[in-house]
Amino acid sequence: MSLALLQEVATNFGPIAAIGAGLAAIGGGIGVGKIGGAAMEAMARQPEMQGKLQGSAIVLIAFIEAVALFGVVVSFLVAG
Amino acid sequence: MSLALLQEVATNFGPIAAIGAGLAAIGGGIGVGKIGGAAMEAMARQPEMQGKLQGSAIVLIAFIEAVALFGVVVSFLVAG
Amino acid sequence: MSLALLQEVATNFGPIAAIGAGLAAIGGGIGVGKIGGAAMEAMARQPEMQGKLQGSAIVLIAFIEAVALFGVVVSFLVAG
Amino acid sequence: MSLALLQEVATNFGPIAAIGAGLAAIGGGIGVGKIGGAAMEAMARQPEMQGKLQGSAIVLIAFIEAVALFGVVVSFLVAG
Amino acid sequence: MSLALLQEVATNFGPIAAIGAGLAAIGGGIGVGKIGGAAMEAMARQPEMQGKLQGSAIVLIAFIEAVALFGVVVSFLVAG
Repeated sequence: MSLALLQEVATNFGPIAAIGAGLAAIGGGIGVGKIGGAAMEAMARQPEMQGKLQGSAIVLIAFIEAVALFGVVVSFLVAG
Repeated sequence: MSLALLQEVATNFGPIAAIGAGLAAIGGGIGVGKIGGAAMEAMARQPEMQGKLQGSAIVLIAFIEAVALFGVVVSFLVAG
Repeated sequence: MSLALLQEVATNFGPIAAIGAGLAAIGGGIGVGKIGGAAMEAMARQPEMQGKLQGSAIVLIAFIEAVALFGVVVSFLVAG
Repeated sequence: MSLALLQEVATNFGPIAAIGAGLAAIGGGIGVGKIGGAAMEAMARQPEMQGKLQGSAIVLIAFIEAVALFGVVVSFLVAG
Repeated sequence: MSLALLQEVATNFGPIAAIGAGLAAIGGGIGVGKIGGAAMEAMARQPEMQGKLQGSAIVLIAFIEAVALFGVVVSFLVAG
């Protein structure tokens, strides 16, 4: 068996990393969903604050996006 | 055993990446569902805000779509 | 062992990809179910908005369908 | 080991795809259950809207059926 | 088998580390989502405190971000 070939076999456990990317997306979904859902309810209770609430929601969502996208990117790099 | 054949064996752990794509879709479902459901309830409470609430919901949903679709795409690339 | 046979063995990890398709369908079910359920309750609270609420629900559901169907399609491609 | 026998072993990873079909059915169950349950409650609250609510429920359920049935079909194709 | 080769094989279980990155992102999503969602509801109840509540939310979210990003980074280093 050639060395290059075995090397290739060894590096092919990579697809399991896709599970990590999927899990990161679940995290993003749970978090953004919770904030977004609460923002909707808040807008219904204080209609005149709709713009401000949307702004605050996006600021807070940014923290989730950071971890989730970072997790997806790391999964991709790890798979390589 | 031919080199090309073993190579093919090695690259066939890929299907496990589909689990990642599925998990990413779960994340999208949970998140969009939560925001959309809350938007529906908010519309029922403030019927005159229906248009604005739908707009805000779509803005917030966009953040989930980004991570979820990114996760599905990464799963697909990783599987390759 | 014939070359064609080993090739067949190698390509048979594919069925695991079906789990990904199933997970994507779970995501679609959770999300559409949450939005649809909330839409039903909203219609009961504001009967005169039934048409508008159904329209908004379908718009929001489209975002879930996109990720879920995309996930199923990727699972199918990955299995190939 | 005869060639035919090994061939049979090789093609028998397929049944794992049935797990995907089952998961897709779980997704359908969760989603349709949520919409249907909410529709029931809505009908109880607004008895005169029973027909319209049933119609809306069926429209929204169609979106879940699409993903769930698609997931089951893909599981079946993948198993083949 | 050469020592260098076996070493390489051994280090290629790395992709499983991506699952850790994904789990860390789930943790971040749940935590930030819960704080952010509660912050939204609090803003709706006390509209004049919107700025202060957002500030407090970000301070509290920082503690979750620290652990989640640390988890993602460790997963990445472990995979290497």
